[in-house]
Amino acid sequence: MHHEFSAEDRQYMQLALSLAAKGLYSTKPNPAVGCVLVKNGEIVGSGWHRKAGELHAERLAMAEAGEKAKGSTAYVTLEPCSHYGRTPPCADGLIEAGVARVVIAAMDPNPLVAGRGVERLSDAGIHIAVGLFEKESLELNKGFIKRMNRGLPYVRLKMASSLDGRTAMANGESQWITGAESRLEVHKMRALSGALITGIGTVLADDPSMTVRLPDEALKDMNLDAENCHPIRVVLDPNLSMPLDAKMLQQPGRTILMTSKQMAEANPALVAQFYEHKVELVAVAAEEDRLDIESVLSYLAQEEHINDVMVESGAIVAGAFISSGFVDELHSFIAPSLLGDEAKPMFFLPQLQTMNDKIQFRIESVDRFGEDIRLVLTKAN
Amino acid sequence: MHHEFSAEDRQYMQLALSLAAKGLYSTKPNPAVGCVLVKNGEIVGSGWHRKAGELHAERLAMAEAGEKAKGSTAYVTLEPCSHYGRTPPCADGLIEAGVARVVIAAMDPNPLVAGRGVERLSDAGIHIAVGLFEKESLELNKGFIKRMNRGLPYVRLKMASSLDGRTAMANGESQWITGAESRLEVHKMRALSGALITGIGTVLADDPSMTVRLPDEALKDMNLDAENCHPIRVVLDPNLSMPLDAKMLQQPGRTILMTSKQMAEANPALVAQFYEHKVELVAVAAEEDRLDIESVLSYLAQEEHINDVMVESGAIVAGAFISSGFVDELHSFIAPSLLGDEAKPMFFLPQLQTMNDKIQFRIESVDRFGEDIRLVLTKAN
Repeated sequence: MHHEFSAEDRQYMQLALSLAAKGLYSTKPNPAVGCVLVKNGEIVGSGWHRKAGELHAERLAMAEAGEKAKGSTAYVTLEPCSHYGRTPPCADGLIEAGVARVVIAAMDPNPLVAGRGVERLSDAGIHIAVGLFEKESLELNKGFIKRMNRGLPYVRLKMASSLDGRTAMANGESQWITGAESRLEVHKMRALSGALITGIGTVLADDPSMTVRLPDEALKDMNLDAENCHPIRVVLDPNLSMPLDAKMLQQPGRTILMTSKQMAEANPALVAQFYEHKVELVAVAAEEDRLDIESVLSYLAQEEHINDVMVESGAIVAGAFISSGFVDELHSFIAPSLLGDEAKPMFFLPQLQTMNDKIQFRIESVDRFGEDIRLVLTKAN
Repeated sequence: MHHEFSAEDRQYMQLALSLAAKGLYSTKPNPAVGCVLVKNGEIVGSGWHRKAGELHAERLAMAEAGEKAKGSTAYVTLEPCSHYGRTPPCADGLIEAGVARVVIAAMDPNPLVAGRGVERLSDAGIHIAVGLFEKESLELNKGFIKRMNRGLPYVRLKMASSLDGRTAMANGESQWITGAESRLEVHKMRALSGALITGIGTVLADDPSMTVRLPDEALKDMNLDAENCHPIRVVLDPNLSMPLDAKMLQQPGRTILMTSKQMAEANPALVAQFYEHKVELVAVAAEEDRLDIESVLSYLAQEEHINDVMVESGAIVAGAFISSGFVDELHSFIAPSLLGDEAKPMFFLPQLQTMNDKIQFRIESVDRFGEDIRLVLTKAN
């Protein structure tokens, strides 16, 4: 079906999208959704989903509109839900309120329920128009959509390097290659992510905290607080070498150690000790001492409902993720400095031998952060 | 002294600057200069210097203006010359033509003659105003200015690498890391340069032609032709390993082999053979088997009148130039691909051991060329 949208439709949906974006950091594992109710050229209600368990965008907009919702047009960035969850279905709410028309940016990405909300509204005689700023709405919820469609999280691999592609000196020193502005952006990426993955090598070398460290004001804008803003820390540790006094174990938030089934089963005493130190252990598929990346990601999406995963690691884990093909976006922060040929490489990729083997990306955006630049890249076909 | 410039002054000087820019590729070793003559709000003559030995911008503008030059204002991007060279002094020409006012963007950078042209004009009763778009005029002639002021050429080091900072596979394969658009830009950089420097390692590994290869149309826009557009090829060859059948020796244009005095004196037969193959030999200062970069550059500026030098080499020569501190601009073309940790590094810089040793640049510009990006960087203080 083909819909024509008016200039007013576009304007109100853009408002709904900007409302949705306010929830970007706080709604996980739910999607960010915004809603605007318009009657006779007047906005009578608006809302955005703030947090799982709290009211959906449509419900908030209707509460504000009260009686005025009757006969109005609802602009919603994602298909209204039709199922009973922690909140009652929004489609029913729109019908009860007497909304006359519903304009929807994108359908529900979950193939099991996609179309049901629209069907319900349509059956109730409500005019439906779908697809206005669909791309923008989907873009806002890339992680949620990937998890719904593929049972996998959206994976962002972050790398901070010098201009000559180095991440640390040969002696391990790496603080700081990039500047304060880049590091601030990295902490925002962390706050967006449900899980932050690293390798045991990085833990042993750098003993990182793997927390979100942002000014209170930034956290407030994200509807987060200093205690509950941290992604789940995930350490890939095939040989169970995690030190029990690792700095990250003293931080707020959870830490999951991923290892092979074989290792977990062979070391019950060690595993028990980890649990005593608040380390959760998860066994995933592995080949020799390399954990299977798809198993790691699939566990996080399906068991932990993680939409967005961020990888921050050394060359070995970064190389394994790149080789796996499961990296959706590479965020490459480049500082205008040289560390030299003895410094540490970005990606361990021993399988690349000829120019035909090279791994090709496409640059999606180039931005400057202080003295550095950041490239966001996606896989080229 | 402080001058006020009118909107008209700014407009005409901008025109003079855009005329000057037309000569950017063809005037070497002369600077690019433009001139506009204006009388009663009408442009009565304009010109730009095209090629050493041909008329200067002021002379061309006066020829066009004829009698109308009398009482006009001349906008000149560089102080008019006051000496007899291949052409008579322009200052005298302006005086003879009866020009009433001369607006100058920048003074002559040569400290030995700076101010003499202005003095001559001023003595003749002509009103002088200096400094309108001075920065833009100096920017246009960075190479000429550096040579005049310091007896050294302006050095641009070009590097083409993958995102992970690699310039070739371990097996030496390097074609092509960057795309066609980047390579076109590199050939324009070559056309701008008076000399193109590489190391003997690159000659032995890649056997490059080191020529300007540009479409006829592009060459025409640059006032160059396919035979006479090539910079002097300079190969740093401390051990005199240059093969006599190297591809570059079959190309139009000159090739200079730089080596140590010791090597040149110790191998008279070999040197004679080089000359038979049209290779010019130059002996420069050296320490062990490392040629002194300052001697190389100073020879090119002072003996060959080279304003702009471009370095295109492997990691060893590139590292030596960076370490020397004589690189004015680093042009880093980055392709969105990964070549892996076994591939070849950008810069051989063994002296860098700790983060305090890192070499810091500043990003001056970021541009996209096809799928690649190019950063232009200058040294940070």
